[in-house]
This record gives sequence, structure tokens and C-alpha cells, in this order.
Amino acid sequence: MDIADDVGAFLPGPRFEHPPLASGRLSGLTFAVKDLFDIAGAVTTFGNPDWARTHKPASATAPIVSTLLQAGGHLAGKTKTVELAYGLTGENVWYGTPINPAAPDRFPGGSSCGSAAAVAAQLVDFALGSDTGGSVRIPASYCGLFGIRPSAGAISLAGACPLAPSLDTPGWFARSASLLTAVGDVLLPANRQGADGPLLRVEEAWVNAQPEVADTLRPALEKLEQLRGRAVGIRLVPEGLSTLYKHFRVVQAEEAWAALGAWVETVTPSFGPGVAERFAAARTTNPADAGIGRGYRRMLQARVRPILAGGAVLVYPTSPCPAPLLTSRQAEQDAVREATMGVTAIAGFCGLPEVTLPVAVVGGAPVGLSLVAGQGQDRALLALACDAAAILGLPV
Amino acid sequence: MDIADDVGAFLPGPRFEHPPLASGRLSGLTFAVKDLFDIAGAVTTFGNPDWARTHKPASATAPIVSTLLQAGGHLAGKTKTVELAYGLTGENVWYGTPINPAAPDRFPGGSSCGSAAAVAAQLVDFALGSDTGGSVRIPASYCGLFGIRPSAGAISLAGACPLAPSLDTPGWFARSASLLTAVGDVLLPANRQGADGPLLRVEEAWVNAQPEVADTLRPALEKLEQLRGRAVGIRLVPEGLSTLYKHFRVVQAEEAWAALGAWVETVTPSFGPGVAERFAAARTTNPADAGIGRGYRRMLQARVRPILAGGAVLVYPTSPCPAPLLTSRQAEQDAVREATMGVTAIAGFCGLPEVTLPVAVVGGAPVGLSLVAGQGQDRALLALACDAAAILGLPV
Repeated sequence: MDIADDVGAFLPGPRFEHPPLASGRLSGLTFAVKDLFDIAGAVTTFGNPDWARTHKPASATAPIVSTLLQAGGHLAGKTKTVELAYGLTGENVWYGTPINPAAPDRFPGGSSCGSAAAVAAQLVDFALGSDTGGSVRIPASYCGLFGIRPSAGAISLAGACPLAPSLDTPGWFARSASLLTAVGDVLLPANRQGADGPLLRVEEAWVNAQPEVADTLRPALEKLEQLRGRAVGIRLVPEGLSTLYKHFRVVQAEEAWAALGAWVETVTPSFGPGVAERFAAARTTNPADAGIGRGYRRMLQARVRPILAGGAVLVYPTSPCPAPLLTSRQAEQDAVREATMGVTAIAGFCGLPEVTLPVAVVGGAPVGLSLVAGQGQDRALLALACDAAAILGLPV
Repeated sequence: MDIADDVGAFLPGPRFEHPPLASGRLSGLTFAVKDLFDIAGAVTTFGNPDWARTHKPASATAPIVSTLLQAGGHLAGKTKTVELAYGLTGENVWYGTPINPAAPDRFPGGSSCGSAAAVAAQLVDFALGSDTGGSVRIPASYCGLFGIRPSAGAISLAGACPLAPSLDTPGWFARSASLLTAVGDVLLPANRQGADGPLLRVEEAWVNAQPEVADTLRPALEKLEQLRGRAVGIRLVPEGLSTLYKHFRVVQAEEAWAALGAWVETVTPSFGPGVAERFAAARTTNPADAGIGRGYRRMLQARVRPILAGGAVLVYPTSPCPAPLLTSRQAEQDAVREATMGVTAIAGFCGLPEVTLPVAVVGGAPVGLSLVAGQGQDRALLALACDAAAILGLPV
């Protein structure tokens, strides 16, 4: 397999291809894997040369990757990630930031930047990423792809590098709803219940979005109402998305330092801009603040999960704005990050499955619309995504 | 038992007392029964002398009444109802409109007017009513009582005169949350699941309420947030409460004519004002409109039930305004009726249990706050009502 990787999606160096282990649902399809999942015999770089330098080749392949190979998928290579998966733009100063094939003057989104770029550039049929605070959903939105963050705990993360274990999930990208679903058929538990209820329009996330993004996505919501009836408006986070972000950030930071701090202290690695600052902040997380954040998280779960238990589906813009320009300033990127994570934290904190649909383009850049279902309703959510794609004129 | 019925709650004439059939949960308590439930040996008047004249004494007692007698309750008598239960003010020109003990210059509310008045005047401990479009919830709100409309189908209506069978439920009044619950313990199926989720503040019902009513009830909602966390705002009826009312009215009218039209045609009874007009309108219900109304009802159920399935609880003013003054004009009463039934139709159309709490007084007249749970969650809702009463300083 010879892929002309014009967008810099794959890791530099040898490609780590692997043929299928059997034939199955994914036979004939190629896929890429974010380089935080172990492939036996290869060093997992986790996006950082010092991590690569201080780790041996993996002795086993992550079960999620083996499952895809067993289902007939052909592994085409390992893709770039933001260092230690701790960033949303997709920038990687060591291995190069992948180009966003859908908007080359903008960031691809991250941390699963290479996987998104590989799918958007049609280098592979689908790709595996991971999502802690939006790392699949945001690059999917930025690159004009279908993407899913499954329910917390639905799919094993064995053999994957951790960032914030209680928030980490795998995820994947595809260019069609049916392929997104086919991968889910292989990876997800069997339950197909749920997600057959009304649409709940989360008002805060619509208000939080740039007006042009909300205006562009609103007609899609109206079409979805043909499937599910009039959307019900809900103010799910009355304390404000910035409050939600504040608690999410501190919980994520505390877990990231618990998972990775010992390595950072021992190795004192070189980090690119942003990542260095985030680990410096994580190092000094106030345990009291983290405790308050965990308490808030339980409260939010107790609020949100019952509302979705009967099959209702949240709907809102995946990201409040399109991908930032590559030339944007750090302060602007930070503002985007904060506004974005206030939204992505809803599913993140509550452990809910979220699918983003490549619904629209604003000023030449893609923006996604998200559907979020109750925990464990992943398969039903994917089925809804297929119906939604059909009615929206997207690739089914 | 000698009761000085200064408020005209009971039917004129013999009192139809009945001692308990056994001792139990309700031993030592007296109760009254709306005169649309059969008591063996007595003519059920259904609030109208022509109905009484054309019906024989009941051969059996309604099971719900027998159940209360078996549980130790002492039946103190039959109470007045609006004619054929088809009205919300509580007016009865034939037997006299009961006085509202909590606001004597205002209507008691109906159709279960006598039962509400009997409890409010402390003539009995609790009383049985029935509710199609608000006939327990509204007199409870108007008279400052706890009242419940249980889930559709939860309690048998055998031996009760029908108004609109798919909408009719029994219901009861009490002056304390624990007594409301004790009656429920006797009458309701055993399931205690549900109603442990977040509060959903139904925005349309708050906006629909008179500003002084909403302002008076809002502090109570804030206290309830201490029990259940921040209330989530929800726009549950985006097509508008007046649309909901329109569909409810036509579905109710069609069923009322199907249930009672043959008798009306045969007997050509004398009706008081309002009731006559409603039956005249019911007679000419457009079947196409009723079909649209039934379709809307199914849509509303599909929208609302999943949102409550996981234990969420709707909260809103039981009635948008206090009881109308006895001196109010018909047009004003009609406007109140329409605004009120747009709210009561939520639980009515969806078959949900609703408890109203006597939370506040506006201009000397009581107004209730309603908690509405998922279908079948009646016992859990009553338990919540007890917790709510405690935190609100109401009689537990």
C-alpha cells in the first residue's frame, strides 16, 4: 500500500502497516490509528519525541486495534497526535501539524489531528482517535467528517496512553454515516436501545456558538425535526458553560498530572507551546478545586443522565466556531478552546455518546452538528445519525 | 357523625355515610366522595337533577371507594360536582356552588368542587374527586390543598361516571402531604421507582402564569432546588400552550359526546350556563379535528414521556392564576379556563401523575405549585411531595 501523504497525517518514518487478521465486516477497508494506541513492535510516540525516546516498543497491540484487524480492516499506519493528547488545535511542533484538507489555512483540530486529516484527505476509509475533552469531535467538526465519542467505558482503552482516565474514550472518524456505524458495529457492546426520543435543543450551546455557526446549523436542526418532531428547548447548564469548563479543566488537569506527572518530573521533556503551559498548570492543581470539580461532575450527571435515559437526544453545534486560522494568535486560540470545551464537556463529564455530523460550511470552513444520547445508547445513536445523514443530504 | 356543612360541600339531602369495612392504614380518618362515584343503594347525581332522575340507585359501590372503606376510612358523605364533571369553576346552579373556604369571594374550582371544599373546611380528612382536564388539580390549587391526579390507568375508574374516558382519572385532596401519600399507599400500584431526577422548569407554564403568581411561586422553586439541584429550564411545548389546549379541548369534547351524547339526546336535560354550551359544542365536534388532536396527543406523549422516564420531574404553577372571583364575567372565566387547561393538558394528554402543593397565596387567594413525574412514578412523586412540603414549611 503506497499512500501519498500530502497532508502530513501519518507519523514520519516507517508506516507500521498491518494486513487484516481475518475477513469480516470491515474487509476491503483501510484505517489509520492515532499514535497513542500500541502496535506490537512499534514505539508509541504519544506525539512527543521524549516520550518516544523513553519508551520501548510495545509488546502487544491494543485490543481495539486487534478487533478492527480481526474484522477485516487493513491498518495503513499510525497518525500524528497532539503531544500527550493535551490540546485541541492539532498542532505538533515536533512531527509537523497535519494539514486540514477541508480548510488548508486552518488548524485540523486535535488531539486526533492525523487521524482526521487522513480520513478527510481520503488516505484511509476510517481512523481511530481518542477523545478526552473533544479530541475526536473537534477535529471531525473542523475537517468536515463524521466522528463519534462513544459512551464512557463502552470500549476498552487497554494499550492506549492515558491522559485523564475517567474522561478518556476512544473514537473514530469516517466520511459516511454508514461507515461510522459499521466500525461501531464491530467495536460497541450489543445494546441497541435508546435514542428514539425527542430532540432536546441545548440552548446554552446554541447561544455559545458564533451567530453565523448557529444560523448555518439551524436549518439542519429544522430538517431533523421532520424525523423526531419539534425540538424541545432545554437550558441544561443554568450555571453557565464557563462554569462547566472551569470544573472540567481542573478535573482533567488533576487526572493528567496523576497519569503523566511522574514521567514529566523524571524526564523533564521538551513540550511545544500550549502543552508546556498545560502541564505546568496541571502540576499545581489545587486538590480542593479538583474535589469541587468532581462534585460538580456528579451533580451534572445526576441532572443530565435521567433526562436522556428514556431516549431523548441532545442537539447542538459540535464546536462554537470553525477551526481557527493557522495565523491566529495564542490568545484567540485560548478563547476558542475555552468556549469549545464548555460544550464538549457536557458529553465528557456525563459519559454520553456523541456523534458529530458534517452538516455545514461557514466562510469556507466546516462546522459539525452534534447528537448526544444517553449513556450506553451508542448503537441507537449511530442509527439515528444514519437517518439524519439521509434527511440532511449527507453521505449515508 | 354530624357535620355542620357551612360551605355547602355535600350533596343536599341524606348524607350517605358508611363506616369502615375493616381497620387499616386509614383507620380514624373520614373522607368524602365526589358524587360521580357509585355508592351502592344511592343514586349518583353526577351533579345534574335530570341525570339523577333518569338513573336508578347504584347496585354496587365503586371499587376505589370500597378500597378506602376496607383500609379503615369512614365515608362521611357525597360531595357536589360540576354537572357531568364538565367545568372548572366549580359552579353548580342546581345544588349550589360550594364556598371556597380559603377565599370565600372566589370560586372553589371544579369539577370536584365539593370534595375540595369539604377538605379545605376541615369537614373530612381527605376526599375523592376525579380529574379529566384539571378537576382535582385546579380546585386543590384554588382551595389551598394538596391534590393528586395519578398516572393514567393506575387506579380503576369502575363505578365512576365517565366524561372523557381516555383522559379521566380519579384523584384526591388532603391538607397534608403525608395524608395525600397515605391515601396513595392504599390506592396505587406498588412501584416506587422514579421521580428521583432533576427538576425541569417548564418555561411555557411559568410564562403563561400571571406575573404575580409566577413571582410568588418562584421562591418555592428555589427552595426545591436545595433538594434536587438547579432546575433545568425546558420549553416543552414549543408550538404553544394554546395549541395544546385546542387539541385537548377537541379530544375531550369528542370523547364526552361519545360517552354522554346519547343520554343528552334522549333526555334533553337542563344544564346550567357553560355546561350547556360545552355539550352543544361537543355535539358538533369535527371528526377530522379530533383525529388531528389525537395525533398531536401521541406526538406529545412521544416527546414528553422519554424525558421523564429516567426520573426527571416537571415543575410549574398548577394554575396560571388564583380562583376567579364569584363576580367575574363569563368572558373572563372562559379566558381563565383556556389559559388553565393549556397547562393542565400537559399531564392530562401524557397520562402523567401530578401533585399540586399549596405553596403560596396571591392577593388573599391560594395558588399551587405542581410536580409532575413520569407515568407510573406516582408513589415516588408522593414521596417527593412530602420532602418538598418539609422544605417549604407546608403541612407534612
